[in-house]
Amino acid sequence: MILYGWHSVAMALANPERRIRRLMLTENAARRLADEGVKSGIEPEIVRPQEIDRLLSPDAVHQGLFAEADALPALALEDLTAQGLVVVLDQITDPHNVGAILRSAAAFAVKAVITTARHSPQASGVLAKAASGALELVPVVTVGNLARGLIALNELGFQTVGLDSEGQENLGSIALREPLALVLGAEGRGLRQLTRDTCSAVARLDLPGGIKSLNVSNAAAIALYVGASRLGLMTV
Amino acid sequence: MILYGWHSVAMALANPERRIRRLMLTENAARRLADEGVKSGIEPEIVRPQEIDRLLSPDAVHQGLFAEADALPALALEDLTAQGLVVVLDQITDPHNVGAILRSAAAFAVKAVITTARHSPQASGVLAKAASGALELVPVVTVGNLARGLIALNELGFQTVGLDSEGQENLGSIALREPLALVLGAEGRGLRQLTRDTCSAVARLDLPGGIKSLNVSNAAAIALYVGASRLGLMTV
Repeated sequence: MILYGWHSVAMALANPERRIRRLMLTENAARRLADEGVKSGIEPEIVRPQEIDRLLSPDAVHQGLFAEADALPALALEDLTAQGLVVVLDQITDPHNVGAILRSAAAFAVKAVITTARHSPQASGVLAKAASGALELVPVVTVGNLARGLIALNELGFQTVGLDSEGQENLGSIALREPLALVLGAEGRGLRQLTRDTCSAVARLDLPGGIKSLNVSNAAAIALYVGASRLGLMTV
Repeated sequence: MILYGWHSVAMALANPERRIRRLMLTENAARRLADEGVKSGIEPEIVRPQEIDRLLSPDAVHQGLFAEADALPALALEDLTAQGLVVVLDQITDPHNVGAILRSAAAFAVKAVITTARHSPQASGVLAKAASGALELVPVVTVGNLARGLIALNELGFQTVGLDSEGQENLGSIALREPLALVLGAEGRGLRQLTRDTCSAVARLDLPGGIKSLNVSNAAAIALYVGASRLGLMTV
């Protein structure tokens, strides 16, 4: 997979589990890594910024760092311990949104993000950039069939709460308990019927304004804040 | 300014305050507008999708709708009534983030978004797309000097609460009251010193995980959720 940008590359270099195959740095980026004591473990190619530009789309902000790396060792659903908070993504594929959700997941001490989507190398670079290093912190579990994954979570003892504008209860009034899985659907379509049927509860977030839906990463951030607060993970 | 995508164009067409100068639609988009009863007020040019593609960057998802429009009539700070919730952006310029914040602002019934940044036409198109129609609902006030803008808000009776990782108090433990201005800084730099000094309080959001900062639009969504809940705007 491709990694670029300060946080995604620096945190990948600092992660002993991450195998880096190729590392391209500008002189400035190499100096900044040295200043911050990040060891690369692989000999970097020192390049001009334009050489990295050529490998990425025009709007990619690489900050002088580019790496090719192996994916991290896969975590299986069965490896999850039944504690804390996990996030489940039901066909959310936009790499900007998935990356931002991973970043929030790392910020709220989420144990794993469970998804059906595999991303192309180019999309995985965008995702890693938006995740801002969170890929090194939050295990991503890719499952073939989400409903079966949710059944497995239910059997492990998770409370599986779907977020959907058609939800029967308000998120604020549902009793949440550990271990908790928050299940998010794609913008527009929301949760699929089978996903909704498999969750132990489906909650909505009543919004007081003229627009009735949030960007999915913003909805995820609020759900994580509510979940982490209710589970006593936040210092208040 | 440029508008593209379903929500941004359809809601602009439905807004009597918005003057549309040029409208390009694919046949499908024209039919969808007719089906949903959206009148355009201007004769659309019916085009093939590729003709809109050519006017936008490759990753712009236009869904067959493109418009050139005048900016909405400007609102001045003095025109604000001292009630409800407003959002202040301290040098947040990324159009994706500003657009997503506008969308959340519309969802949480925010009265105005106050910013120093003016956007280029291309950036304003990206911003409007991410805002998903919110530009038609939330007045944007552009001020030359943010500190003077905050002083004016203080004088109007607003509680001005800055969000910053260096904040003295936890957002969850600050007594919030109406009218409330939530002040957000750019990622990385945070709030400028003068902004912090001018706010009536500076709050942080303590995050329990390994990453200590959120994407700014995600942080904004959580702050808006907390603010709207505390002001009694949310149904619980």
